[in-house]
Amino acid sequence: MKRLKFIGHHKLDMKLAELLGYKEHTKLLIIHADDAGLSHSENMATIESLKHGVVNSYSIMINCPWSFEICQFAKQNPQFDYGIHLTLTCEWETYKFGSVLPSNQVPSLLDQNGFFYMRREQLVSNATLEDVEKELDAQIQRAFQLGLNPSHIDSHMYSVGSCPEFFKIYQDLGTKYQLPIMVSEQLMEMVGLNPKYYIKTGDLLIKKVHYGIFDYFKSQSLREYYSKVFEDLVSGLNLILIHPAYDTFEMKGITINHPNFGSEWRQIDFDSFTSDSCKEQLKKSDIELITWRDIRNVMYN
Amino acid sequence: MKRLKFIGHHKLDMKLAELLGYKEHTKLLIIHADDAGLSHSENMATIESLKHGVVNSYSIMINCPWSFEICQFAKQNPQFDYGIHLTLTCEWETYKFGSVLPSNQVPSLLDQNGFFYMRREQLVSNATLEDVEKELDAQIQRAFQLGLNPSHIDSHMYSVGSCPEFFKIYQDLGTKYQLPIMVSEQLMEMVGLNPKYYIKTGDLLIKKVHYGIFDYFKSQSLREYYSKVFEDLVSGLNLILIHPAYDTFEMKGITINHPNFGSEWRQIDFDSFTSDSCKEQLKKSDIELITWRDIRNVMYN
Repeated sequence: MKRLKFIGHHKLDMKLAELLGYKEHTKLLIIHADDAGLSHSENMATIESLKHGVVNSYSIMINCPWSFEICQFAKQNPQFDYGIHLTLTCEWETYKFGSVLPSNQVPSLLDQNGFFYMRREQLVSNATLEDVEKELDAQIQRAFQLGLNPSHIDSHMYSVGSCPEFFKIYQDLGTKYQLPIMVSEQLMEMVGLNPKYYIKTGDLLIKKVHYGIFDYFKSQSLREYYSKVFEDLVSGLNLILIHPAYDTFEMKGITINHPNFGSEWRQIDFDSFTSDSCKEQLKKSDIELITWRDIRNVMYN
Repeated sequence: MKRLKFIGHHKLDMKLAELLGYKEHTKLLIIHADDAGLSHSENMATIESLKHGVVNSYSIMINCPWSFEICQFAKQNPQFDYGIHLTLTCEWETYKFGSVLPSNQVPSLLDQNGFFYMRREQLVSNATLEDVEKELDAQIQRAFQLGLNPSHIDSHMYSVGSCPEFFKIYQDLGTKYQLPIMVSEQLMEMVGLNPKYYIKTGDLLIKKVHYGIFDYFKSQSLREYYSKVFEDLVSGLNLILIHPAYDTFEMKGITINHPNFGSEWRQIDFDSFTSDSCKEQLKKSDIELITWRDIRNVMYN
């Protein structure tokens, strides 16, 4: 791989292909599994998608009940790229989790039962910046404590984009730990943050994030969307975001009354990105798969 | 129900039948499901065993990932008797949990990763009495905080019997919260505590605890044991201890490399105590089913 001299992050996204040794307008792609650590079904499907599918990066909810299992896998399988899926919300009705910090240290992040709030709006109404900063920092520290070597940080429900101050905390943590953070204008807009004002010079922008939406799921066209997603790639950095899990009793229980990113949806994610046709398509394409580790090496090595 | 005047706990077990309005030598029985809250499979199987099986009492691991779900059920279904399954150990390899108290408040109970130790011996070697007392008290308080009204307290892996000092803490918590505690000479002996020295005057002794052992499971005679368990009842208070759960992907994951009280075992527990033949046997028997709530009413009302 050809290495150009890297002189600051400004416009890094424009130069990324060349810095990684590819031609200027190459379609770069990370196929990323979110939510590892959430459950056993999520862990096992993520691992299978990495081993026998086209998924090539994932991130871990370090505060979740099944994180220990996936952390053991991560340590024993350093060939697979992984990051920390910073978490400040718990969207599920009956399956609840909260902070890695003791509840008395971050009370503003927790509801009356000691769990994360379900929605970003509740988080913003209640959380102090100090608690957000402490908890997100602690999630990264927890990963190090468990012996992990994450390549990046990203955000569950993109809650770090819930308000400008959270986003700055997120940016600062990337700098502090020398880890690339996932910055996307699309996702910022989705959660109500104006990218114009809050993207920093140092941020590496994802050119296009590809993810299923609830309308596709409801109209049973999610599989079809995925089957054509490689055709939608643009030149520069693309990110496909999925949540592979098995549609088991456990996942049905976790996602009860929540079909959006629910159990059935996650099984489709798994099926689609482990299918033979998907592998074939990718092989025939002009797409270059890269990982967050490649990006980290360019940004911080 | 006839009420005799209750004048202290001494020899309560001898008088229990009469205090509850039964004849002196009646075979009293509680069919009890341990480990609710452990997982979704455990919760759902426990609920089904209560609703459509013969299980008539259960206890909740309040510190576990799925406790919120079963606590909601408990609150909405006060007709079913439940207690708190005090927990100081986590026997599983990949599925880990720890204290309800912040980890920095009970460091001696937690391993290097912040989870409970797997074995009673490790607990005894590491735990301070102060931390044990604080954590067990906090588990009961947590139940109250969640709006529960438990009828009794008992102990996961009977770890409160790991040493005499733990057992005293357990006894004192029963007195403090006016909740019956589960005291069994058999279980004390199993964990290495001499009943002669550590049973208090106030303790209500279970006359006979009936539970499957690993040899039965290995020799595939666990179902048979259960099918004849009602024949083994003695006069006085009997307790059948089971762990109903569905043998799902989740439970297989939790109990990996741990067939003793593993996923397959728990499915047998569920099957056996929801079967028609079990219900028939019980109907034809001279057994009187009672609950911990009945006992609490006699002891503390």
